[in-house]
Amino acid sequence: MGNFYKDNDDLRFYVEQYLDWEPLVDLTEYRGRAKDSFKNTAEAVEFYGDILDLVGQFVADDIAPHAEAIDKNGVQLVDGEAILPEPQASIFEKLKALELHGMCLPRELGGQNCPLIMYLLTCEMFARADVSVCAHHGFHGGMAMAMLVFSLREGSTKWDVEKGGITETRFAKEIEEIRKGEAWGCMDITEPDAGSDMARLRAVGEQDEDGNWFVTGQKIFITSGHGKYHFVIARTEKAGDPDDPFAGLKGLSFFLVPTYEDDADGNRKRIVEIVRLEEKLGHHGSATASLSFERAPAQLVGERGEGFKYMLLLMNNARLGVGFEALGLCEAAHRMAREYAAERVSMGKTIDQHEMIADYLEEMQTDIQGIRALAMYGAWHEEMAHKVELMVDSGLADTELAGDANAAQYRSQLKSYKKKARRVTPLLKYVAAEQAVAIARTNVQIHGGVGYTKDYGAEKLLRDAMVFPIYEGTSQIQALMAMKDTLGGILKNPRGFIRRLAQTRWRSMSASDPLEKRLAKLQLLSFSVQQHLVARTAADKGRALAGKPISEWPERFFKDWDPKRDFAFAMLHAERLTQILADVAICEVLYEQARRFPDRREVLVRYIERAEPRCRYNQDRINSTGDRLLAKLTHDHSGAQTERKAG
Amino acid sequence: MGNFYKDNDDLRFYVEQYLDWEPLVDLTEYRGRAKDSFKNTAEAVEFYGDILDLVGQFVADDIAPHAEAIDKNGVQLVDGEAILPEPQASIFEKLKALELHGMCLPRELGGQNCPLIMYLLTCEMFARADVSVCAHHGFHGGMAMAMLVFSLREGSTKWDVEKGGITETRFAKEIEEIRKGEAWGCMDITEPDAGSDMARLRAVGEQDEDGNWFVTGQKIFITSGHGKYHFVIARTEKAGDPDDPFAGLKGLSFFLVPTYEDDADGNRKRIVEIVRLEEKLGHHGSATASLSFERAPAQLVGERGEGFKYMLLLMNNARLGVGFEALGLCEAAHRMAREYAAERVSMGKTIDQHEMIADYLEEMQTDIQGIRALAMYGAWHEEMAHKVELMVDSGLADTELAGDANAAQYRSQLKSYKKKARRVTPLLKYVAAEQAVAIARTNVQIHGGVGYTKDYGAEKLLRDAMVFPIYEGTSQIQALMAMKDTLGGILKNPRGFIRRLAQTRWRSMSASDPLEKRLAKLQLLSFSVQQHLVARTAADKGRALAGKPISEWPERFFKDWDPKRDFAFAMLHAERLTQILADVAICEVLYEQARRFPDRREVLVRYIERAEPRCRYNQDRINSTGDRLLAKLTHDHSGAQTERKAG
Repeated sequence: MGNFYKDNDDLRFYVEQYLDWEPLVDLTEYRGRAKDSFKNTAEAVEFYGDILDLVGQFVADDIAPHAEAIDKNGVQLVDGEAILPEPQASIFEKLKALELHGMCLPRELGGQNCPLIMYLLTCEMFARADVSVCAHHGFHGGMAMAMLVFSLREGSTKWDVEKGGITETRFAKEIEEIRKGEAWGCMDITEPDAGSDMARLRAVGEQDEDGNWFVTGQKIFITSGHGKYHFVIARTEKAGDPDDPFAGLKGLSFFLVPTYEDDADGNRKRIVEIVRLEEKLGHHGSATASLSFERAPAQLVGERGEGFKYMLLLMNNARLGVGFEALGLCEAAHRMAREYAAERVSMGKTIDQHEMIADYLEEMQTDIQGIRALAMYGAWHEEMAHKVELMVDSGLADTELAGDANAAQYRSQLKSYKKKARRVTPLLKYVAAEQAVAIARTNVQIHGGVGYTKDYGAEKLLRDAMVFPIYEGTSQIQALMAMKDTLGGILKNPRGFIRRLAQTRWRSMSASDPLEKRLAKLQLLSFSVQQHLVARTAADKGRALAGKPISEWPERFFKDWDPKRDFAFAMLHAERLTQILADVAICEVLYEQARRFPDRREVLVRYIERAEPRCRYNQDRINSTGDRLLAKLTHDHSGAQTERKAG
Repeated sequence: MGNFYKDNDDLRFYVEQYLDWEPLVDLTEYRGRAKDSFKNTAEAVEFYGDILDLVGQFVADDIAPHAEAIDKNGVQLVDGEAILPEPQASIFEKLKALELHGMCLPRELGGQNCPLIMYLLTCEMFARADVSVCAHHGFHGGMAMAMLVFSLREGSTKWDVEKGGITETRFAKEIEEIRKGEAWGCMDITEPDAGSDMARLRAVGEQDEDGNWFVTGQKIFITSGHGKYHFVIARTEKAGDPDDPFAGLKGLSFFLVPTYEDDADGNRKRIVEIVRLEEKLGHHGSATASLSFERAPAQLVGERGEGFKYMLLLMNNARLGVGFEALGLCEAAHRMAREYAAERVSMGKTIDQHEMIADYLEEMQTDIQGIRALAMYGAWHEEMAHKVELMVDSGLADTELAGDANAAQYRSQLKSYKKKARRVTPLLKYVAAEQAVAIARTNVQIHGGVGYTKDYGAEKLLRDAMVFPIYEGTSQIQALMAMKDTLGGILKNPRGFIRRLAQTRWRSMSASDPLEKRLAKLQLLSFSVQQHLVARTAADKGRALAGKPISEWPERFFKDWDPKRDFAFAMLHAERLTQILADVAICEVLYEQARRFPDRREVLVRYIERAEPRCRYNQDRINSTGDRLLAKLTHDHSGAQTERKAG
């Protein structure tokens, strides 16, 4: 009897006020040419609002009350098939009836043609109700969208420019099945000895004399791996230089492997075997399968050797998805804590009036608003980048639009969209995942004894949250990516860095708005840390850059480059840097909001107050620690090598 | 096939080198008068070492391998009785055979007369094997010791000074049963609406016309509450002033309530009902019971109204116990992480060579060594305080010893022992509990995907750890206690504070040992934070102290004192202050170790390197945040009051 959209002012602010829908709707509706297009943006946004309202009510009424039972029953492996027990089976029947799987598919494929950000907005609400239902749900519509993207990428989708729609697409049959709720797909990457390190993948794709492909190997930790369609990454070429840890990536290809084979009589035979379902800490409504492929018939997607590229294609989206998922869980944990603390009396008052508890509750609320700001910023830019690239820039919408002023404008902004999305995605994945764990843990603590029992569901949220920092790239991987992108950016364009530094310094002194001044100071701190890390990285390279002007760094820097050795200091501190980058990025987005919507200033005030000492702490740790440990690691390493040689 | 004592160098360092056994053995053996006393300290320590060795092997061979099964099977409620399923039932049979329940009981009561610290040392090893077995084990011997202490406190134990032993004690029968492993006891305090806030307790103790006592009420979250003997706190007097939240504490009394009543024919009838066992996140081998007392026959312990005092009597010990328990779990998590990271290869090397992972592992190791240092310091001083008070100071050992030079020396140090134990106990409980959660979480993260499954047991350690910050007084309660003791100490003796400040400032500038200098600087930071909190607390009291010399503070301070209002700023920051106090206390203990044992310098180097930025961060947060939130709380509160008056 609730509504997870209507009861959430902060979420509604984005839909109703903040998000720049105009260009999104324009591109999603193929510049107004799409079948049954909306009359205008307002009409589209009204429609989106109706869907969010519908989903908000559905998840509150039909999922949230069953979260406890879903957690208890889990997914079961019966005779080699994974079974969703009640109440989850009913939930997915209802989802089918609501036709939500087609929400973001084009109308000509039977969908409602919503922007992708709509998928992410509903994802937050699903996750607030139950994270594992959210995850499994995502492998329906999300995977149908992925099929379309893969097909567009390899050029197996045809397009009618005049009618602004798709006329043919390679995976039309599969997409149709998924849209109707009769199937779902999954993405099979991880193997027993290859998690973050994909160069170690060993599943094999082989071709017979007739050119047919077969996949053989083991895949583990496959979310919704009991699906009908598998996108599988497998090795088709031999690895290159054994000393180059990334060489193995070039030999990977991308395949679609159906789970079953139907013979002429319509008998169904399982080809991809479910070896087992993982017993997990949480996420009990989401199957995590170990799969075995034994010469499973496969269809190559794209070209041989493009497997890693295809996987990356939707990686940003998947990570944004985890960001929204984590956000939903944070929202659930914060509300549960707030409600309990408003009821529980201790020492003569409700505990939300106890200073420490009030502080926790405000910190939760503030962090959630910060994460949501970053999530919306990332999602909008990622979708704009995708859409512009596909629609305007890749020739799909063809020459006619090329002269269009709007199209030209979009195209000129493409680089900026991409850069912004790429910058914030690992920060969002990192910070949302880590905060979900922290917030879920605080919720347990606020509940005291009952938090440790199954009574209120507090412990369940912590168990569910613990997967976020692990799947879709661990927190450590996000931190390394953010660090490499940031420092690499400085090395590629040191003059740009110096210019930004000077501008920020000026703003930190001259801005008339005290909040802008505080933001500029935080940005300066971040720049100073980045500079320190670059300088230290340089210093570790034999102090080649000492005393040289920063503009001469790139050339000297890349001479005799050994990432293993030279990046050690920055790798050690990557997580601390990432925390600074995330705090600064959130403050930037909140500051832009505050400028447009004065009501939002208080959110920034709350956020920056907590971000300032946190950033100073991370800077302090980067400046004052690490050398001793690195010396020890180098020493141990050379010791081990000597030993190995002697042995 | 392991030995959790022999394989732990850091633990053995304390037993074999650090701990000052001489006075402990001297007091434990009643100055050499005890029955079958050791010839000297060396002989005693050798005996203790043998026991630790035995326990170390037992827990490694007979408990650790079954931790997974214990977690899976849990304790079950069958026909109103809580049943320990296999393999736990066998473990407790073996413990009975090993006679470990009597380890710390006097020999004249059938025990081995070990010092209490031996119980804590074994507790760490038990917890490393399985925390829930450790907890349940503790309610055997630990409760027998408690019975003895309660009896000594109320004067129902008789003593033969000549023979240095007990001749009669009130709970002899119960102690004997427990020693033999045929029973255990529990401590029944918490009620549905009264957790940290004991003034709200509602269970009632009533006396009939013949003077017999009966207890009626509900108790929840009773660890090992399926025991035969219950120490129950219940209300015997009406509460005083309803506006004074502590008034209710004075009306509480302490009772012993047996679970069963045996009739003349030897038929056993259950009186204390187990209403249910909690379904918990972890600790599955430890029963957590909800109990119902319906006019249960009870024996009053001590005097009416002394319930709260009796409960406090062993509170410090119980909190030290949780510290050691948490330490054991940290040890298990760190070793699991270290072993996995040394095997798992990614990007061309084992992940323990990856900078971030190496940093996590070193941080775990360092924090564990810090916690152990604090735990040993706390345990030794607590036991010395207890023993001196009971043996030398309370007249138990009587007049003859009064003239003894050693006894006089002990007595003169009693205040210092007490003060030191009281100071570090909440710090230990706080930091060990919080670090156990953090370390267990990092262990899961280092395991990546498999950490989220039940395969390696990483997730189980996190589930088990989550109770530490909740039971035996939440982390927040520890923080409030530490804060009040610390600031109260300054207010009571401001001149002493100024003197310590000056001495420390001098050491921070003049010490020749750079580590001593760093320690002094950290102590200065702590003093500065304490001073700031006292000053702010004062400022909030109408700025009465502004510009007044610190020596005049106490008098002005306690005028019109309202703890609810005046302590708000310090209460908000209590946890941050506690983190500083714990870091400084650990560095102090490690520095003393380093002075005596040069090998230990490197532990301090590692610890202080991480403690320094952490302390600066906590100081920064105390200095730069809080005012806005407190203003909001005051505003909300007065708003709510106005509303109530208007309504």
